[in-house]
Amino acid sequence: LAIGNVPSAYNATLFVSLEPCNHHAHTPPCTEAILSAGITRVFVGALDPDERVAGSGVERLRADGVDVTVGMLSDEVFANDPGYFHHRTTGLPLVTVKLATTLDGQAAARDGTSQWITSPEARMDAQELRSENDVVIVGAGTIIADDPLLTVRLPHYEGPQPRPVIIAGSRDIPSDRKILQRDPIIYRPHNSTRVDPIHVLEDLGERGYTTAMVEGGPAVASDFLRAKAVDRIVWYVGAKLAIGGGLPALSGVFETIGDATNLTITDVEQIGPDVRISAIIDREH
Amino acid sequence: LAIGNVPSAYNATLFVSLEPCNHHAHTPPCTEAILSAGITRVFVGALDPDERVAGSGVERLRADGVDVTVGMLSDEVFANDPGYFHHRTTGLPLVTVKLATTLDGQAAARDGTSQWITSPEARMDAQELRSENDVVIVGAGTIIADDPLLTVRLPHYEGPQPRPVIIAGSRDIPSDRKILQRDPIIYRPHNSTRVDPIHVLEDLGERGYTTAMVEGGPAVASDFLRAKAVDRIVWYVGAKLAIGGGLPALSGVFETIGDATNLTITDVEQIGPDVRISAIIDREH
Repeated sequence: LAIGNVPSAYNATLFVSLEPCNHHAHTPPCTEAILSAGITRVFVGALDPDERVAGSGVERLRADGVDVTVGMLSDEVFANDPGYFHHRTTGLPLVTVKLATTLDGQAAARDGTSQWITSPEARMDAQELRSENDVVIVGAGTIIADDPLLTVRLPHYEGPQPRPVIIAGSRDIPSDRKILQRDPIIYRPHNSTRVDPIHVLEDLGERGYTTAMVEGGPAVASDFLRAKAVDRIVWYVGAKLAIGGGLPALSGVFETIGDATNLTITDVEQIGPDVRISAIIDREH
Repeated sequence: LAIGNVPSAYNATLFVSLEPCNHHAHTPPCTEAILSAGITRVFVGALDPDERVAGSGVERLRADGVDVTVGMLSDEVFANDPGYFHHRTTGLPLVTVKLATTLDGQAAARDGTSQWITSPEARMDAQELRSENDVVIVGAGTIIADDPLLTVRLPHYEGPQPRPVIIAGSRDIPSDRKILQRDPIIYRPHNSTRVDPIHVLEDLGERGYTTAMVEGGPAVASDFLRAKAVDRIVWYVGAKLAIGGGLPALSGVFETIGDATNLTITDVEQIGPDVRISAIIDREH
């Protein structure tokens, strides 16, 4: 809390988005700075769900007679950094699966070609989505087949680059793959043929990553979805029709209607000629 | 033209959506009624593309000194009955394919179950779409499997019911199917294994039907799309995820990306919990 930059805060009112902390971390407790500055009124947008804060900041201020109003902007503060709240509440990163298909649901043609099912506008939008995530998760198959860098490629972008996460199977990743220069985290199966998505998320959460984007391929995306390790879906629907089966966006078999997973569609937008459908996975199912 | 209902139209100005006709059909020419009423000014929203009219109505009025202004509402008049303009221009009905799938593009689960991938709101919306069509086209497989009536079932609906059209294959349609009570038009293949969609449309157009809705199954919808016999697509995307392959909405194989059909997405709307994407098929492709 940069109260030191203000000439005098004596008897002042302070507005903060997130609850001031009451513990020593990288910096001394914010509550001390507030009290020693003589601030008498504080508006707190939202409580900090971090277990080291979680109301103790507000409590400390009130104990010293500060008039504290709390939570009038909880939704807005949450929306500003949903990953933070999710991570501090669950210990796991907020996971978004990104997919792109033709209107009739094909991720690629039978021969593997898919350039370009979605438009430059939609691909740019997906780059923005990537920039909002701490890590990007892909399967080794994608690394072997496409040799992607998985960097954010937006004009004039100078923000952080998401760390690559590779879900490895039994195949080796060739040592010439570009991604290996970007310090990827590689998960390999233990005593099974597949990596457990929940274990991946637990480890990423412990490393402090608050947001993760699953970019494919179909097996990795399906594994995460089936393991209930996904919070949000962003689906780009290209203005194309395949008229027949190509390659699917998600692998596996949809056996019977009762197996369907319920979604809540939260946003639908036209992105250039295409459509972006955003959804969250219903937890009650 | 019900000019007879007005006390006097002498020296009056007339506003009409569609160009007055100049020929005898069910009724005498509208132009005669206008001229004999002494109307001196006429605003015509749009020219009638019917080859028996097509400007001759306007010509006739102008020849007798009537001041005619034409076409200031062409788009609105067109939008009010696109099937009429399409039919009078091409001789064919305006064809809409309706489909419904999960967000990940599955029309049903592997075991055939699909109730209910879309919501009551979306199904009601599809009923409204059905009510806007002169005929509903389905394959014999749908008749055999589901025994549908294909009527409009909207509360308090008393409008016309679309005539059922059945694309028959080699299998017989059991005589107890309900649809047989609704005077269906049945097309059977001649000298081939499949009915040619263009022949179907030509015949429906000759019968005067201006709008047709293809409701499936996957083979019939694909046949119409591949034959370039479709003008518009209405796709209902249910708020469900299959996470794997079930039954497709369209049959056939998407061999390579160059085979994709370009669409123009004209409207995207949330219908209850679901999404409706409307598109037209790009003619240049």
